[in-house]
Amino acid sequence: MTHGLWWEDLTSGWSLHLGSCAVDRDEVIAFATRYDPQPFHVDEAAAAANPLFGRLCASGVHSFALTSRLMFDGFQRAGLLPLGGAGLDELRFLKPVFPGDTLTARVEVIAARMLASYPDRGVVTMRTEASNQHGEAVLRFSGAVFFPRRPDPLSRM
Amino acid sequence: MTHGLWWEDLTSGWSLHLGSCAVDRDEVIAFATRYDPQPFHVDEAAAAANPLFGRLCASGVHSFALTSRLMFDGFQRAGLLPLGGAGLDELRFLKPVFPGDTLTARVEVIAARMLASYPDRGVVTMRTEASNQHGEAVLRFSGAVFFPRRPDPLSRM
Repeated sequence: MTHGLWWEDLTSGWSLHLGSCAVDRDEVIAFATRYDPQPFHVDEAAAAANPLFGRLCASGVHSFALTSRLMFDGFQRAGLLPLGGAGLDELRFLKPVFPGDTLTARVEVIAARMLASYPDRGVVTMRTEASNQHGEAVLRFSGAVFFPRRPDPLSRM
Repeated sequence: MTHGLWWEDLTSGWSLHLGSCAVDRDEVIAFATRYDPQPFHVDEAAAAANPLFGRLCASGVHSFALTSRLMFDGFQRAGLLPLGGAGLDELRFLKPVFPGDTLTARVEVIAARMLASYPDRGVVTMRTEASNQHGEAVLRFSGAVFFPRRPDPLSRM
């Protein structure tokens, strides 16, 4: 994996399609059983009786984890190597995510700034949104991610 | 599982210890392999070479998932039945979480309000914090959670 893009390329308004993934029923149940065992995430009958969803739906933590994987893969394909993230803001679960859904995600740069103390990296505030196969946004968040800066060719002389 | 506490009990400043869990090395690797396969989450040697962490550490998504499970279990023990959450704010990864760590979490009510359109439930803004065995906060977030309101005894007459 080589760098194709650097912090300098991630200017405000820059966006990237992160690809898609399927939401697998067995994985929905296994994930929720371990991390968020609400009846409507692990039990079809209990979910059907819940007026809010009506059928088994994925834990929001799981939808977020799937979107994280789409980010990882999308960044890899674009040659983007994030150094890490400091946190997330405004994570919103907008619509339930159901087994059989296909999630598609997209990321957009909201702001970018240099770091006075670290000349080798910069920080980018990104907004990520995942949608289902009906084009409905299901999950959204923004987050600050650190990326390496393009090495100065003069520094190699 | 019966209701022990209702929305009315969750006043500002109310807090709850959510218990503890161990961070298992195999689970750290399995989770990250599926959802966040950064080298420092899945590969001991790559993690050792990373100046930021120095050794294998859990994906922030995984730490968040483990904390979600602590919330579920802690709420169950307290007789709290959340109806769901709308989202999270200010999720911060404060310190790396390493295999072998023990996470302990605590939740505190920041604000509570009724919902004009839904007399049977209320919303509570909660701040959740997870700490490691050294007492260092590793993860923090706030979120709005819906809880059922105590049934009015008059309504049953």
